[in-house]
Amino acid sequence: MNIRFYNARILTMEADMPVLEGELWVREERILYVGDGADREAVFRKNGIDCMIWDEEIDCKGNLLMPGFKDAHTHSGMTLLRSYADDLPLQSWLNEQVFPIEARMTAEDIYHLTKLAVLEYLTSGITAIFDMYLTPESIARACSEMGMRCVQTGAVNNFSQSVDLAEKWYHELNGKDPLLSFRLGFHAEYTCSRELMEQMAGLAGKLKAPVYMHLSETKKEVEDCVERYGVTPGVFLDSLGMFEYGGGAYHCVWLTPEEISLFKKKKVSVITNPASNLKLASGIAPIRDFLEAGLNVAIGTDGPASNNCLDMFREMFLVTGLAKVREKDASAVDAMEVLRMATVNGAEAMGLADADVLAEGKLADIIMIDLHQPNMQPLNNIAKNIVYSGSKQNVKMTMIHGKICYHDGVFYVPEEPEEIYAKANEIIGKMRQ
Amino acid sequence: MNIRFYNARILTMEADMPVLEGELWVREERILYVGDGADREAVFRKNGIDCMIWDEEIDCKGNLLMPGFKDAHTHSGMTLLRSYADDLPLQSWLNEQVFPIEARMTAEDIYHLTKLAVLEYLTSGITAIFDMYLTPESIARACSEMGMRCVQTGAVNNFSQSVDLAEKWYHELNGKDPLLSFRLGFHAEYTCSRELMEQMAGLAGKLKAPVYMHLSETKKEVEDCVERYGVTPGVFLDSLGMFEYGGGAYHCVWLTPEEISLFKKKKVSVITNPASNLKLASGIAPIRDFLEAGLNVAIGTDGPASNNCLDMFREMFLVTGLAKVREKDASAVDAMEVLRMATVNGAEAMGLADADVLAEGKLADIIMIDLHQPNMQPLNNIAKNIVYSGSKQNVKMTMIHGKICYHDGVFYVPEEPEEIYAKANEIIGKMRQ
Repeated sequence: MNIRFYNARILTMEADMPVLEGELWVREERILYVGDGADREAVFRKNGIDCMIWDEEIDCKGNLLMPGFKDAHTHSGMTLLRSYADDLPLQSWLNEQVFPIEARMTAEDIYHLTKLAVLEYLTSGITAIFDMYLTPESIARACSEMGMRCVQTGAVNNFSQSVDLAEKWYHELNGKDPLLSFRLGFHAEYTCSRELMEQMAGLAGKLKAPVYMHLSETKKEVEDCVERYGVTPGVFLDSLGMFEYGGGAYHCVWLTPEEISLFKKKKVSVITNPASNLKLASGIAPIRDFLEAGLNVAIGTDGPASNNCLDMFREMFLVTGLAKVREKDASAVDAMEVLRMATVNGAEAMGLADADVLAEGKLADIIMIDLHQPNMQPLNNIAKNIVYSGSKQNVKMTMIHGKICYHDGVFYVPEEPEEIYAKANEIIGKMRQ
Repeated sequence: MNIRFYNARILTMEADMPVLEGELWVREERILYVGDGADREAVFRKNGIDCMIWDEEIDCKGNLLMPGFKDAHTHSGMTLLRSYADDLPLQSWLNEQVFPIEARMTAEDIYHLTKLAVLEYLTSGITAIFDMYLTPESIARACSEMGMRCVQTGAVNNFSQSVDLAEKWYHELNGKDPLLSFRLGFHAEYTCSRELMEQMAGLAGKLKAPVYMHLSETKKEVEDCVERYGVTPGVFLDSLGMFEYGGGAYHCVWLTPEEISLFKKKKVSVITNPASNLKLASGIAPIRDFLEAGLNVAIGTDGPASNNCLDMFREMFLVTGLAKVREKDASAVDAMEVLRMATVNGAEAMGLADADVLAEGKLADIIMIDLHQPNMQPLNNIAKNIVYSGSKQNVKMTMIHGKICYHDGVFYVPEEPEEIYAKANEIIGKMRQ
């Protein structure tokens, strides 16, 4: 499909680029052109075409096009457990509620539950997810069918998955479908034996691949690690050679200054999950310290059992709001910094260098933000409006890989939303029997 | 208008009432009936009518009716300053940015800017606001025209308004328009002379009226008050006789245990403003302590310059999320408690006893929550879904005083939204010249 967007405001998210007014052209899955539309002929010549025949021309009516949000840490299949077991501390929530239900979930269940999550990502302008869950093959199938860009990471731990399976999936889920990729990962230090983590570091060395994991989410987790290994989780994993090819760590609420320096040196991204860290009473991450150290900081919703929604607007406000209250400084972590985290930095953490900004040749992962809503007015500062007053209600369109998946409240996916809802309710009903 | 809602789920917010399935009937501005629709004839007999002729019958398709949210602290006219001066500490934000612009705003400006805020309240299911701002007469006009229920409070301080004006407005703005009322109030201890506050307490005694004010928003404010008067602000105001007829205090981030006991004794409501307290780095209020002491706790967005949106979903998540992280206890302040704050407790704080729950004879201030959205599925627990995963996107309808003001994204107000936006942009443009 070739689609021309006109009458648009455009926030490309390229460094220091102001909000443009003009056009954006999509040819198949890529952006052909961003600009004021005046140098049309030159663009055609440059691309060796005489003219463009548009499948669709969309009048943006002054609304904003920007790169889609990257949800850099989630567990999509946990839609099942939304509002199922709230108001419990993390360890009892995991051990007494989440793990027993998860033990009964099939790959087919997770296929359906992931589709439910995808619908919500689309409503929130999320065009790529970094998913860690139980059954990578059925998750891949769900995302491919729904048109969602999905980078998966393994969740190897003492009870499920394995280093061999991680290697198998690494080969099978990379390079086949342009929407899908797979990265090495394990659940967390506290759910893996030392031997298992050594094997994982070995595999990372063999494949020259980055590794991802939950890390320093709770104070107790860090204290337990220190008791077990004499050092904090980040330092311990580094001692196993886990970060030789970089990677990323989810949560990082209790990261030490030593670990912050280490992560900078080893090119480990931090993926922050503020709503989940509040809801499970885990704490407030030192985002300003991360930024001052020059870390790549991205944002994730975490799974819908611990959040409970998949809403990047809530997360963006929390990243800045919590930084301000933590540092007792209302100037901490400004809106543009947060927008970078939610887009460009997420792309970097997930290995999606081609889907970071709106520019010629980049993948067409684009959202349209409705500025004709009262929470976006007046137009004093569009970027600040998005971070400080934006909501899902402002997502007018979500395009992934050149395909419009959501527009004006309608989902363009191969299954009726009501069927997907029914399936999710059927699965939780079955679990409750 | 007589309107019948059927095929509804209904969360009445009456104590311990589960989610019902059935019908809700509205006759003019009041609720005629809530139930399963079976005892229709008995309802007619009881109300001395033979039958109802419905102006509209609305199939709710299983969506949820609940009382509209009460935004128990806001400054609507500050829409002008949304995204205008973010990322500054409270005192410089107020003194260097807000006050100079406010000094140039006319009553007519505030009339238009309040209408912009009303549009946003409608999108967030807010059916009543507790507004404190500069020009009560023009605010009253804006709300009356737009159909918004508005309780105003004066903002007397050393620089604007006066105790005489407060008394005048008290008489003029109460009892005239069923949508409007006015309560005594002053800006804050730190913007009023002792003499002015003594006069205000005198007026409260004369009118036997509750009084409202900002209180203990920042640590510095409390410290300054202790330096000035030897006691914290709540204790100081009580010593002037300010709370003899109750009232309410906005923010209360730094309330002391002594003040919590005092507020319980004097029936002073606490109105919490979590997003604003984050954004201005003011702190996290001890909500669990308030609840344990039996205070009436309501929720407000604060004005759109310090939030920057008027979104009760964000506030509700923050109330519980911040309580959890503050108390290091993920079971602190559960979802039903938060829903009560956002509805019933707000009504109590604002003197809207007739608009608190959905029951026969109550005012028809009703919203419909769209459960056919992915963030509301599966239906494990509807109340938790609203608090933990709800967003403006779920507000399908907002009815105030029996009139539908917003439905399926369309505003039923006497002016085109685009005209209201244009006016707001024109006013800020003028200020910038």
